[in-house]
Amino acid sequence: MSRIADISWRAEVAPGDIAQVRGLVAATRFFTEEEIAIAAELVEERLAKGAASGYEFFFAEKRNTVLGYACYGRTPGSDHSWDLYWIVVDPERQGQGLGREILARIEPKIHAGGGRLLWADTSSTGRYAPTRAFYLRAGFLEAARLANFYRPGDDKVIYEKRL
Amino acid sequence: MSRIADISWRAEVAPGDIAQVRGLVAATRFFTEEEIAIAAELVEERLAKGAASGYEFFFAEKRNTVLGYACYGRTPGSDHSWDLYWIVVDPERQGQGLGREILARIEPKIHAGGGRLLWADTSSTGRYAPTRAFYLRAGFLEAARLANFYRPGDDKVIYEKRL
Repeated sequence: MSRIADISWRAEVAPGDIAQVRGLVAATRFFTEEEIAIAAELVEERLAKGAASGYEFFFAEKRNTVLGYACYGRTPGSDHSWDLYWIVVDPERQGQGLGREILARIEPKIHAGGGRLLWADTSSTGRYAPTRAFYLRAGFLEAARLANFYRPGDDKVIYEKRL
Repeated sequence: MSRIADISWRAEVAPGDIAQVRGLVAATRFFTEEEIAIAAELVEERLAKGAASGYEFFFAEKRNTVLGYACYGRTPGSDHSWDLYWIVVDPERQGQGLGREILARIEPKIHAGGGRLLWADTSSTGRYAPTRAFYLRAGFLEAARLANFYRPGDDKVIYEKRL
């Protein structure tokens, strides 16, 4: 975790984060064009509407370059559930605990906001095995699978973490 | 179903639908203020962004008054899943097949758009028993339950219909 020491952390969202998030999400080579666009749109939503957007952000950066971030928010209609919409780490910084550290830093914020359950979901395919392993290592449990949700043979796996 | 005969149907969204949807959703006395606001915001999103909003609407109306509507859309990131976000019928017209008729009219549109699975979710509490019964009558199957999702003792029940 020694390389975590050079990271600075930030919850405020700035206009430059639209491009930073788009670039980071694209750099993982893990997401489709549509997903990259959605990730950037959530930053725009936050900038346009503030907290009323329902999207909270947390950035890990080094010399003004975002190396990882999470986008999360209270689940509309629930008293105590929150959704982890995105958690992304720069491919060159993956496997060094940065994702875990981002999560460890947002969980107290979520708890302070009344959150007791944090939900995340991902695909069941082999490509997402590292993502699923990340959630399990980070203390999430598999709560449900929706068969063939994304496409035939590609289930939605729903994870839950009690805070 | 005889009273269905006097209904007209419309997929186009007009600025007046913001107030119509808010009024209809409030009239059911079934949704919280937050939920009423969300229902109206989705109409605003559609008006502002068009099809790019991801929200499709279908209205049942009589003499320019909306008596029921559905809000649905392709699930981002999926090839063939669509979400039924809202389906609401005026309390004075409930139990007359209007909800089923709205669903029967949007399903071919969803199918034509590549949709093969339609997802809906609701609460496990007694208050939502009529909603759950509606989905089951309409051909949905229970796909999963997320325990205590909304609040302790109030699960999220996820329904799936194959189109």
